[in-house]
Amino acid sequence: MTFSTLEYKERIRKTKERMMEKGIEVLLITDPGNIYYLSGYNGWSFYVHQMLILIIDEDQPMWIGREMDANAAKVTTWLYRDNIIPYPDDYVHSETKHPMDFVAGFLKEIGQENRSIGVEMENYYFTAKCLERLKKAMPNSVFKDATLLVNWVRLIKSDTEIEYMKRAAVIAEKAMKAGIEMINEGVRECDVAAKIFHTQISGTEEFGGDYPSIVPLLPSGEKTSTPHLTWTDERYKDGDAVILELAGCYKRYHAPLARTVQIGKPSEKLKTLASVAVEGINACLDMIAPGIACEEIEETWRKTIAKSGFVKESRLGYSMGLNYPPDWGEHTVSIRKGDKTILKPNMTFHLIPGLWLDNYGFEVSESIRITENGCETLASMPRDLILKEYV
Amino acid sequence: MTFSTLEYKERIRKTKERMMEKGIEVLLITDPGNIYYLSGYNGWSFYVHQMLILIIDEDQPMWIGREMDANAAKVTTWLYRDNIIPYPDDYVHSETKHPMDFVAGFLKEIGQENRSIGVEMENYYFTAKCLERLKKAMPNSVFKDATLLVNWVRLIKSDTEIEYMKRAAVIAEKAMKAGIEMINEGVRECDVAAKIFHTQISGTEEFGGDYPSIVPLLPSGEKTSTPHLTWTDERYKDGDAVILELAGCYKRYHAPLARTVQIGKPSEKLKTLASVAVEGINACLDMIAPGIACEEIEETWRKTIAKSGFVKESRLGYSMGLNYPPDWGEHTVSIRKGDKTILKPNMTFHLIPGLWLDNYGFEVSESIRITENGCETLASMPRDLILKEYV
Repeated sequence: MTFSTLEYKERIRKTKERMMEKGIEVLLITDPGNIYYLSGYNGWSFYVHQMLILIIDEDQPMWIGREMDANAAKVTTWLYRDNIIPYPDDYVHSETKHPMDFVAGFLKEIGQENRSIGVEMENYYFTAKCLERLKKAMPNSVFKDATLLVNWVRLIKSDTEIEYMKRAAVIAEKAMKAGIEMINEGVRECDVAAKIFHTQISGTEEFGGDYPSIVPLLPSGEKTSTPHLTWTDERYKDGDAVILELAGCYKRYHAPLARTVQIGKPSEKLKTLASVAVEGINACLDMIAPGIACEEIEETWRKTIAKSGFVKESRLGYSMGLNYPPDWGEHTVSIRKGDKTILKPNMTFHLIPGLWLDNYGFEVSESIRITENGCETLASMPRDLILKEYV
Repeated sequence: MTFSTLEYKERIRKTKERMMEKGIEVLLITDPGNIYYLSGYNGWSFYVHQMLILIIDEDQPMWIGREMDANAAKVTTWLYRDNIIPYPDDYVHSETKHPMDFVAGFLKEIGQENRSIGVEMENYYFTAKCLERLKKAMPNSVFKDATLLVNWVRLIKSDTEIEYMKRAAVIAEKAMKAGIEMINEGVRECDVAAKIFHTQISGTEEFGGDYPSIVPLLPSGEKTSTPHLTWTDERYKDGDAVILELAGCYKRYHAPLARTVQIGKPSEKLKTLASVAVEGINACLDMIAPGIACEEIEETWRKTIAKSGFVKESRLGYSMGLNYPPDWGEHTVSIRKGDKTILKPNMTFHLIPGLWLDNYGFEVSESIRITENGCETLASMPRDLILKEYV
């Protein structure tokens, strides 16, 4: 098992505390990260509807999923077999049946329909149709918004989770170095991406890697003006800059990392941008400590780069760790103006001061853990613009 | 550009035809596959809300997305710059603001709020919260369910799309062979997965690979009783069977492929299961042709395996081609009882007669194209249980 039963039970206890605060008696959990967090369930089956049901006065959650995935639940979770409830395959991608009809029928059967039911309104895996079908089948139920309820429980990591993230960081660093090593004039973007993937999944001799929730992002040339492009099969040219954003992943826990590489001579404007961003992130890393509010980090960043006349509109970072595609972020805390979350030890963030301008950009990032008296980066690599074959 | 402007315009025309049939004047498209299909937009930014708006009496759709992704829209789409509308970053993962508030404001601004508005109710990227916020901001608008409206347009592929899928199949076959080659006693699962990933992304010397929407699935040993497990860092043992399900991907078009490998001596029951499944899929491939209903394929399969006393509850296949994580399926046609879709040339399916029993299983699959008078498999590989180091 990935975590001890004791750790799962503690997570359930904390989740129930939040349910009570919100007056939720039955929690329908559709976020695959939350399902994994509470049950251990782990498979690429989230492309069909599946759910964990946590009832306030029951010890164990129940898993509902597609029949062919029930054996995966038996293999990966700490749940009793009776708590693994499969739905028939004709509910999958059907024009008439919907898995939420099955869920509603099940909730009625076990006498839970008249209780206060929490649903994750803002989650990829709880569509508008899901709510519509549940409401139709259970017209007398009261539905409450439980978006991020479990995610907030996940904010402070246990020592085991930190250990997994540190392993992820070892992989991230290895993958980043492999990518940087390979980038050069005449090399195809897809071959660099392939090398990064290989390193991410193969991991180290001691432990293998899991798939990160986002593929490597590696825009080059003018495409560095935007962060979320993947790769092509074109060859790098002399003068291209390449932004690399990737993560290592171990047992679904991530450590993202971004660096920028220059093939040949960098432009003066990129050199300036890089030094401003690196000065900014260093200033943040120096001041981050427990007791500080998230927005204070952003303030430090903003004031540092303002000295050189730069402004960044987008957020500076976010809470991350456990997740499934399409995102490794946890969607709770953002490091930006207005976020007053107070830092505590074992919170983990991706601090990513990317700057994307009209036709160029620069990224440097660190995955960090809040320590007892400051913060530590999970990986350890120089932050400056990386020069390849500088002429 | 990935497709000619002519091809995009033809897709828009067909989409508008369906909008008219359904009485939809403004279509809000959130499925990343549909967004790509109509605009060319391609980036890993679907983890935040983004949308293509197609108005019945406008020539071009409009893209709405996060500010930092607007440059990606400029790089990858055929849209006029004026049709690329960024929303500010503080709408991202916010407890107070939601991107659908921005969308509603924009629709009001351009005088579209009183028209009939189609939304993709059943899509990963249109959450229950999306609909709630749209309805709240536009209380007088009429919302109609436009789930799969564009997906149905995608059912029959153009020659360019078929060419992309054939390239994907070349990659799939190469990745499958690389995986099979490497599987052996003492080898770690993660190292096989890494090799597959490398082959998928690096592609061939002529063209590189894109990321498939599902990672390689490779359950081994007793875990072959379920299809959607990924890998661990454990080492294969003599006697393990391994199911490999993977896809090649080229410019977001997929060709999935599944095979089963046996390390050492196979059990008699697995040999039986394999020969039944292979006989079943071969019988289907022989009878598939334009004019046949999808459910007739399933009937052929069912009757063929029934002769040996086997039953399969899950569907036999589904329409596939273009998609983004978490699925390569198109969610329209299923090859199963009750699906009366009539086959036409250039429809493409993943025919996957997997059989998962209590503690073992077998998968073999083909990506197929309906031809003028039958069908062709996109890849070309023997279908039998693959024996490694048979003693």
